[in-house]
Amino acid sequence: MPDKILDDISHRRYNPLRGSWLLVSPHRTKRPWQGQQEGPGINKLPEYDPTCYLCPRNPRAQGESNPDYKETFVFVNDYSAVKEVQQDYEPEPDPSSDDLSSLLLRAEGVKGKCFVLTFSPKHHLTLADMAAKDTLPAIETWTRIYATHLAPTNPLADVAAKLALMRTETPPESSVPAPIQQLRYMQIFENKGAAMGCSNPHPHCQIWTTSTLPEEPAAEAVQMAQYRAEHGGRHLLQDYVKLEMEKRERIVYQNASFLVVCPWWAVWPFEVMIIAKRHVRALVDLTEQERLYFAEAIQEVTRRYDNLFETSFPYSSGIHQAPLDGTNEEIENSYFHMHFYPPLLRSATVRKFLVGYELMAEPQRDITPEQAAARLRDCGGELYRKKLP
Amino acid sequence: MPDKILDDISHRRYNPLRGSWLLVSPHRTKRPWQGQQEGPGINKLPEYDPTCYLCPRNPRAQGESNPDYKETFVFVNDYSAVKEVQQDYEPEPDPSSDDLSSLLLRAEGVKGKCFVLTFSPKHHLTLADMAAKDTLPAIETWTRIYATHLAPTNPLADVAAKLALMRTETPPESSVPAPIQQLRYMQIFENKGAAMGCSNPHPHCQIWTTSTLPEEPAAEAVQMAQYRAEHGGRHLLQDYVKLEMEKRERIVYQNASFLVVCPWWAVWPFEVMIIAKRHVRALVDLTEQERLYFAEAIQEVTRRYDNLFETSFPYSSGIHQAPLDGTNEEIENSYFHMHFYPPLLRSATVRKFLVGYELMAEPQRDITPEQAAARLRDCGGELYRKKLP
Ligand SMILES: O=P(O)(O)O[C@H]1O[C@H](CO)[C@@H](O)[C@H](O)[C@H]1O
Ligand SMILES: O=P(O)(O)O[C@H]1O[C@H](CO)[C@@H](O)[C@H](O)[C@H]1O
Repeated sequence: MPDKILDDISHRRYNPLRGSWLLVSPHRTKRPWQGQQEGPGINKLPEYDPTCYLCPRNPRAQGESNPDYKETFVFVNDYSAVKEVQQDYEPEPDPSSDDLSSLLLRAEGVKGKCFVLTFSPKHHLTLADMAAKDTLPAIETWTRIYATHLAPTNPLADVAAKLALMRTETPPESSVPAPIQQLRYMQIFENKGAAMGCSNPHPHCQIWTTSTLPEEPAAEAVQMAQYRAEHGGRHLLQDYVKLEMEKRERIVYQNASFLVVCPWWAVWPFEVMIIAKRHVRALVDLTEQERLYFAEAIQEVTRRYDNLFETSFPYSSGIHQAPLDGTNEEIENSYFHMHFYPPLLRSATVRKFLVGYELMAEPQRDITPEQAAARLRDCGGELYRKKLP
Repeated sequence: MPDKILDDISHRRYNPLRGSWLLVSPHRTKRPWQGQQEGPGINKLPEYDPTCYLCPRNPRAQGESNPDYKETFVFVNDYSAVKEVQQDYEPEPDPSSDDLSSLLLRAEGVKGKCFVLTFSPKHHLTLADMAAKDTLPAIETWTRIYATHLAPTNPLADVAAKLALMRTETPPESSVPAPIQQLRYMQIFENKGAAMGCSNPHPHCQIWTTSTLPEEPAAEAVQMAQYRAEHGGRHLLQDYVKLEMEKRERIVYQNASFLVVCPWWAVWPFEVMIIAKRHVRALVDLTEQERLYFAEAIQEVTRRYDNLFETSFPYSSGIHQAPLDGTNEEIENSYFHMHFYPPLLRSATVRKFLVGYELMAEPQRDITPEQAAARLRDCGGELYRKKLP
């Protein structure tokens, strides 16, 4: 039995994965909205757009042309946030202000590489439109790029070497050059929809690899390591999967290998997590069968999202997994999962803004994760667009 | 001399106030933008709008009518995120799943009170349009509400009792009922502009008080306490003010009492902080003269923002100061400052989205804080709107 009272009172929930709190105000959904509205979303995109730099055969910013690809296509971002080659940074010692500069003006250089990966040659599709099996090439490419960038000392490198998909011949569209230096972390993420800062509707994601471990996976790693240390080597997310499967209050969907839940600590109105049911450290740990289950879980999430408000639902999503380089313990503590952060709250045009209070004080949500899960559970079935006349 | 190389290479900067890192990619501003554009912003608002629930004399959601106020007006938010009276929350012990629920499904009840405070009876104004002295009533009301909510054991309560503004007769429009229970923290913040989730252009801010200490001020408190402990009792922000006044690279504006900088660790493109030059713990520590200097600093920030892209610049702002209730040490460690988080990046219509990578991995910015400060320094002078024919 859930604590029914949490549907009525303001409360805080703790996110054990990040080690932070958020404010939940379930009664606040009645608030009228006269603020900014999202556009209804372009529905009638062409299958091929001659001005799109992601469509097959079209030219890109730096003059190169895309191949006539059939499934996915990966390339180095023409406006990468990090680069493989740049000057090293050594802060100048500054004797003038005793040591205040070194305390308060700290910086470090970051190297890395950013990729763009299309999900399909077809400009007008989204993951929600694609059958699970048609997203497998993207998942295989993620796995391959991740494998290519693993440190030779990473225990996952051995796993990667034995991967079936590594042995088959890779089409040039889904291979990337070997990195010229060892990097620390690979963040795979998708910004979908104009509301989430996406500048091109052609279905694609990004992959940013860096010489540093970014804040979010670092915070999760600390929490997961501490949990394991305090609870006899059990994984936080494995315990969480077990608990949610018993409680059945926040489950949106599940298959043999993955659980999809609106987490207890969700910040975004319809936030979900896809969590591996067994301990999977990274993409390369997935079997061929598990990759298909993963594709299915992604398909279920994105289709339900679109069905919820009968719109092309915006979101940012991202995969958290083992670092490319790290201690054996760090790799072993990692637990494969994927976050979806969608902004819409009440309809295709009314979103939740995480602004003043959220930025200055603490994240705040209106509907409870249990209410969100119930609604997403109920909107499976065929994609609403396919049923339209 | 700045480390010039940081204008060219990707790097991370450390935020000592929060204890977190962000990624800076200075070369990335050349990226073309085909994504969502902000609306040009409504320019021709009427001085009085009969449908606005914040204008004088108009009815509000719960049926009450606003007084015919002349300066500011404060009332309890009709859709408060927290309430003074609600049932207590005692999690039900759940023997079925050993202790996983108490580890992974943690919650606590939150009580509190939310206020809305208008800056002016005039619907069409913003802080940028108002003279510094005309925003003094709002600053005095903040101070008065803060004072009213202080715990009797808080050393600031004595300071508040002696405040001149507490002794003058308070107009009913700027007084609030005494709280019925002791609360822990008061967050004053403004969401300005549709892009920052503001649902009514009438100039106003919000004040949320809670029985809990929210995440952001809590994180800052930990960092500030640690800094003091490690550096002979010196305040982190006081050292930072000293350093920035020596370096002169990130200063936007200053007067006798306040420094306005684009902080070394700014995340938002034109983020600024207003920092007290002397150790001020909270609003009640400010002298009458200092309140005017504070008003001037706010005026300089908001006017420069509007001048930068010749638009009504959106932002979220918020004040961090001592908690209402806390240990003497906590109060003494607090250091008064105000954050401004504005989303615009390149023009009135092109904003920075903090989305996929930023949410999943680490905040990322394009232009450097030094570049942002130089631009804001250069756009003082009269408000652009006043110069238009
Ligand atoms: O209270 P308002 O102005 O209606 O609402 C706005 O500010 C709140 C506090 O930052 C947010 O929770 C809301 O998402 C935002 O739209
Ligand atoms: O790289 P894109 O898609 O052009 O840009 C988008 O995603 C990036 C990574 O989350 C963000 O830094 C940008 O603000 C956003 O507009």
